[in-house]
Amino acid sequence: MGGFISKKAKILGEVLGPSVILGESFIGDGTIIDQQVYIGYPKKSKLLRNPRGIEELDALSLGSRIGSKCVIRSQTIIYEEVQMGDVVETGHGVMIREGSKIGSNTRIGSFTQLDGAVIIGSNVNIQSRVYLPHLTVVEDDVFIGPCAIVTNDRYPLSRRLSGVRIERGAVIGAGAILMAGIRISERAVVAAGAIVTKDVPENKVVVGVPARIKMDRDEYEEKKRRYEEGA
Amino acid sequence: MGGFISKKAKILGEVLGPSVILGESFIGDGTIIDQQVYIGYPKKSKLLRNPRGIEELDALSLGSRIGSKCVIRSQTIIYEEVQMGDVVETGHGVMIREGSKIGSNTRIGSFTQLDGAVIIGSNVNIQSRVYLPHLTVVEDDVFIGPCAIVTNDRYPLSRRLSGVRIERGAVIGAGAILMAGIRISERAVVAAGAIVTKDVPENKVVVGVPARIKMDRDEYEEKKRRYEEGA
Amino acid sequence: MGGFISKKAKILGEVLGPSVILGESFIGDGTIIDQQVYIGYPKKSKLLRNPRGIEELDALSLGSRIGSKCVIRSQTIIYEEVQMGDVVETGHGVMIREGSKIGSNTRIGSFTQLDGAVIIGSNVNIQSRVYLPHLTVVEDDVFIGPCAIVTNDRYPLSRRLSGVRIERGAVIGAGAILMAGIRISERAVVAAGAIVTKDVPENKVVVGVPARIKMDRDEYEEKKRRYEEGA
Repeated sequence: MGGFISKKAKILGEVLGPSVILGESFIGDGTIIDQQVYIGYPKKSKLLRNPRGIEELDALSLGSRIGSKCVIRSQTIIYEEVQMGDVVETGHGVMIREGSKIGSNTRIGSFTQLDGAVIIGSNVNIQSRVYLPHLTVVEDDVFIGPCAIVTNDRYPLSRRLSGVRIERGAVIGAGAILMAGIRISERAVVAAGAIVTKDVPENKVVVGVPARIKMDRDEYEEKKRRYEEGA
Repeated sequence: MGGFISKKAKILGEVLGPSVILGESFIGDGTIIDQQVYIGYPKKSKLLRNPRGIEELDALSLGSRIGSKCVIRSQTIIYEEVQMGDVVETGHGVMIREGSKIGSNTRIGSFTQLDGAVIIGSNVNIQSRVYLPHLTVVEDDVFIGPCAIVTNDRYPLSRRLSGVRIERGAVIGAGAILMAGIRISERAVVAAGAIVTKDVPENKVVVGVPARIKMDRDEYEEKKRRYEEGA
Repeated sequence: MGGFISKKAKILGEVLGPSVILGESFIGDGTIIDQQVYIGYPKKSKLLRNPRGIEELDALSLGSRIGSKCVIRSQTIIYEEVQMGDVVETGHGVMIREGSKIGSNTRIGSFTQLDGAVIIGSNVNIQSRVYLPHLTVVEDDVFIGPCAIVTNDRYPLSRRLSGVRIERGAVIGAGAILMAGIRISERAVVAAGAIVTKDVPENKVVVGVPARIKMDRDEYEEKKRRYEEGA
């Protein structure tokens, strides 16, 4: 990547190698921007104005805001108008589209994609290769396993998008698929590989295709405790 | 990426930053090539000839043809002998292997992979992270949701590959898996998460694991209409 | 990518364009390192020491060892303390985290991720977009289809990780999901899209959600033989 740092950007952290930072982006103190990172990538409507070179892109970008003590690894692409709190870590090749907001102490695994206007809370742990489309909301303290897929259109290609909401403390297993518009309630658990077609109540654990309630969160925690002890 | 534009390439569009364009590639008028794009990547047999540096790779590459008014975003890799029509848009990190053909007015989402000799029609909308292996055919006006997986080998690792054909106007839901050799007929719909093990007839909607017919496309369109109205 | 080759690295092969090779890395004879490759990427604990620039990262990296006659394609990221045998081929965008070991004559498809301390044997064929978490073991002669997902935590987020073991000669179909801690025994076959929740015995073929035994490997091979003949 040809390194390019906008004159409008304010960078308190460290940029380790050639990266592109456009517009009035802000990079907080103690934050590490790896190389081959792109921050402030312009949304589609701006690309279609036929910019001629990186300076014109820079003039079009509104930039993004990255907090303090973050680690943004190589090949990560962050569009314009993204807000990220403090102590956020991204893996490699993460893509975060325009208008997304991320809290603090949150981890976003390699190759995970937040496809625009996605809201992520604090203390969230999203593993690698997760797909979160436009309008998804993930509250605080949620865990999302690798390769989980969230959707936002019940009858594609419709004119109505319905974001999924994953409430505080919920756990989503690897490779699970969540249908458009559903709510995963507080402390609910979705098993790996489950396909969830309707709302999951608080503290319930769902498994299977389509997903059905199998137990309560308390029972899950008890099983987990025994598993951790090696039983 | 160290920028390199072959002297043999003909570029009418705009290259926004360091990218590699090899061989007798053609880039149409009004097309935007973002940075970190690779066009004309040589297929394996040429890499194994032990090229020493990019000039030797350039001499080996046959190049590719990109039409007019396309947008090719960063980290996209297009192998040699690819043909792309006009007004085609790729997301970031798209990979298109050798011998693939893409019509016009088609969109290919971020991190989607066309794994060689894949034929895509016009007015096709392929979302992010879709995997289309060697020999897949996608006709005009098809929609493919994010993370869908198409296969081409019924008994891996066999010596016979059987491409999937997705016919005109069909809809493939997010995360669906299509088995090798099947045909998704015109205007058929595959629900999100479905695993399709046999041909789907025209105008039928299939759901589940394994996928079974649930309704006609007309009924689907009626449900969709009510959903869009907020019912 | 800003090219950077550590003075401590020993490179017998060819580096085709700007890539980063850190620490006491070794690149064997006849190996091709494409451009935009990163070898010797430091693990997290080192990034958190707040290195200022690539030279400090280089001082922290222990490097990795790549054998002879390998092909490492663009955008591949190999962390430190990785050992790779001879004649290994990676696609584009492959990610291999610290402490992983890979035998010889093995192929790792594009965008596949080995998430740390993953052991891969020789003559293994891993297709594109496969996810193998920390502690996964893949023995010799295994085939893993595209987009397969392996997990390592039965009750996320637990303190105990249980790696999956895929034994010699096993076949894993596209998009299959393997639950934490299970063993896929020698020459077993997992069908595409199957969700495997318990050990699969030797020479058995499992299909479905959850996966159940459907036939023996011998019967599978007979079906495969007829399929290859076009029946």
